[in-house]
Amino acid sequence: MQSREIRLRRRPTGVPEPDDFQLVTVEVPEPEEDEVTVRNLFMSVDPYMRGRMRERHSYATPFEVGAVLSGGSVGVVTESLHPELEPGDAVLGNFGWRESFTTLGGKLRRLGPLEDLPAPPQAYLGVLGLTGMTAYVGLLEVADLQEGETVFVSGAAGAVGSVAGQIAKIHGCRVLGSAGSRKKIDWITQELGVDYAFDYHEGRLGEHLREGAPEGLDVYFDNVGGSHLEAAIGHMRRFGRIALCGAISQYNDAEPPPGPRNLFRAITMGLTLRGFLVSQFNEMADEFRTAMTQWLDDGRVKYRETIRDGIESAPEAFIGLFDGENMGKMLVRLGKA
Amino acid sequence: MQSREIRLRRRPTGVPEPDDFQLVTVEVPEPEEDEVTVRNLFMSVDPYMRGRMRERHSYATPFEVGAVLSGGSVGVVTESLHPELEPGDAVLGNFGWRESFTTLGGKLRRLGPLEDLPAPPQAYLGVLGLTGMTAYVGLLEVADLQEGETVFVSGAAGAVGSVAGQIAKIHGCRVLGSAGSRKKIDWITQELGVDYAFDYHEGRLGEHLREGAPEGLDVYFDNVGGSHLEAAIGHMRRFGRIALCGAISQYNDAEPPPGPRNLFRAITMGLTLRGFLVSQFNEMADEFRTAMTQWLDDGRVKYRETIRDGIESAPEAFIGLFDGENMGKMLVRLGKA
Repeated sequence: MQSREIRLRRRPTGVPEPDDFQLVTVEVPEPEEDEVTVRNLFMSVDPYMRGRMRERHSYATPFEVGAVLSGGSVGVVTESLHPELEPGDAVLGNFGWRESFTTLGGKLRRLGPLEDLPAPPQAYLGVLGLTGMTAYVGLLEVADLQEGETVFVSGAAGAVGSVAGQIAKIHGCRVLGSAGSRKKIDWITQELGVDYAFDYHEGRLGEHLREGAPEGLDVYFDNVGGSHLEAAIGHMRRFGRIALCGAISQYNDAEPPPGPRNLFRAITMGLTLRGFLVSQFNEMADEFRTAMTQWLDDGRVKYRETIRDGIESAPEAFIGLFDGENMGKMLVRLGKA
Repeated sequence: MQSREIRLRRRPTGVPEPDDFQLVTVEVPEPEEDEVTVRNLFMSVDPYMRGRMRERHSYATPFEVGAVLSGGSVGVVTESLHPELEPGDAVLGNFGWRESFTTLGGKLRRLGPLEDLPAPPQAYLGVLGLTGMTAYVGLLEVADLQEGETVFVSGAAGAVGSVAGQIAKIHGCRVLGSAGSRKKIDWITQELGVDYAFDYHEGRLGEHLREGAPEGLDVYFDNVGGSHLEAAIGHMRRFGRIALCGAISQYNDAEPPPGPRNLFRAITMGLTLRGFLVSQFNEMADEFRTAMTQWLDDGRVKYRETIRDGIESAPEAFIGLFDGENMGKMLVRLGKA
């Protein structure tokens, strides 16, 4: 059997370009003992992957030039020599950027028979997966969100931000959100319940924060970094907490930009800035899945996906993240269920 | 009775100059009901006071041009119409920058009869006072120091830093310290037990940290900000904690300098940066005083003072903080006990 996969042709300089990637057709080996062959249904593209395209160590070991990329994927088992996985089982793994693959069954998480899944399979890459869990642990654990506080979420129409805003609303908070287009603003205010949303291209960030939160912010969930972080620091209330989740504004910069000029305010206001990776909080996975499943059932968390079709569209889907092309989670559909 | 006091003649630009201050002789009023008159013995000069000399709000309300300055002071009651204070009582207050004053007794903390104090009165401005308590809460509460960790303290021969380093040693930690002269390095290594000390004028900060802590830092106690903070962020271990206590390197800057360029590392390494003022932790005062009194009795905490004589030397003592003239706590002696 053949599969197509995306390799890193060269390390991007600045904003990635389609030519930084290469589409290659490969043979998928037959499974041997304890192995399975999987046909991918969806793969995730995430901003953090940009860091792995650098030579330096970032979140994880760098991608290698010439090798297939990797990332979150959900697929269905087609052949199995693993005792606990059967053809038809939906599985979650880190085998994105390819249509099919063969690997040890132990490297996959079994979700159950595809046809019995309580949610669409791609939800396990988004709201029910690491994306949703990032919002959950970032707000509730890292930022120690309390009922009724005032919260600012940047990238509030993105995969993580759109979930974070809704979790804050469920906790009785006032929520401010920034996004990059009118359409996104409309979505997060009219459908997700964000109280005050603004387009960060328009006006000054600090003025938006003053207007949306005259008393200041208790919590800032940072997906953007840069000027967003500086503006938020300048508007935090005493003992405010900042969860440093991402910094998409600077992922394509050749050199890291200067940090916030007003970091001294952390001293005078007793602020906490805490960075995190969702992987630090693996022990909260069950708690998260239980809560999120309930919220989805109750209609208290809604989600959108921006789906591109076919492995050949994966590079453009990834590049589109930096242009804000996605509403909610950006996904690539690799095969029909 | 007359007293001399120091007023702010004008707001300093850059490093403060003697002409920014003015020495004035005033009448000290007789005490009325519930008031006392106090003759100061020592006053504290502290880097944070520079922020209060700006027009903008910093730690506290700005000092007013033309008005007497204020700050920590210890003195002895000379006259009292307050039921709980007697002549001869040592008192702690916020009435520095003046030789004598009359105020409501309720604004002072009674230490007991001057002749019975278990420590020299000026120790209540330093190691037994807010200075020592800043080191205590910053390390143990803000940075959540654990036994046996590796800790870097900047300004490690200063008032707060010299105490912080010793508290870390008491907790079985490996301690790195930066200071600005060979004499200071000798003091903190030979007398205070700092394991690896370096002069920050010499070599690169990052190289010193790598040499002194090949495995990286668990905790950084920041008194300096700027390049010290950036170097420390670059050398923190996973889940490291940074207590943001002060930023003396930038107090005289007209505009706040850019923040650390490597703040993104807080995300990938799960770092926490937490700013604080000692006043947030008033409920820990008794615990602190009990612990510190014991450590002083046991000889486990030692301290030095740099003393200038006479109210007229207060501006120079203050200015000298920014030249690193002090070993340990900088004090001005205002009168003989």
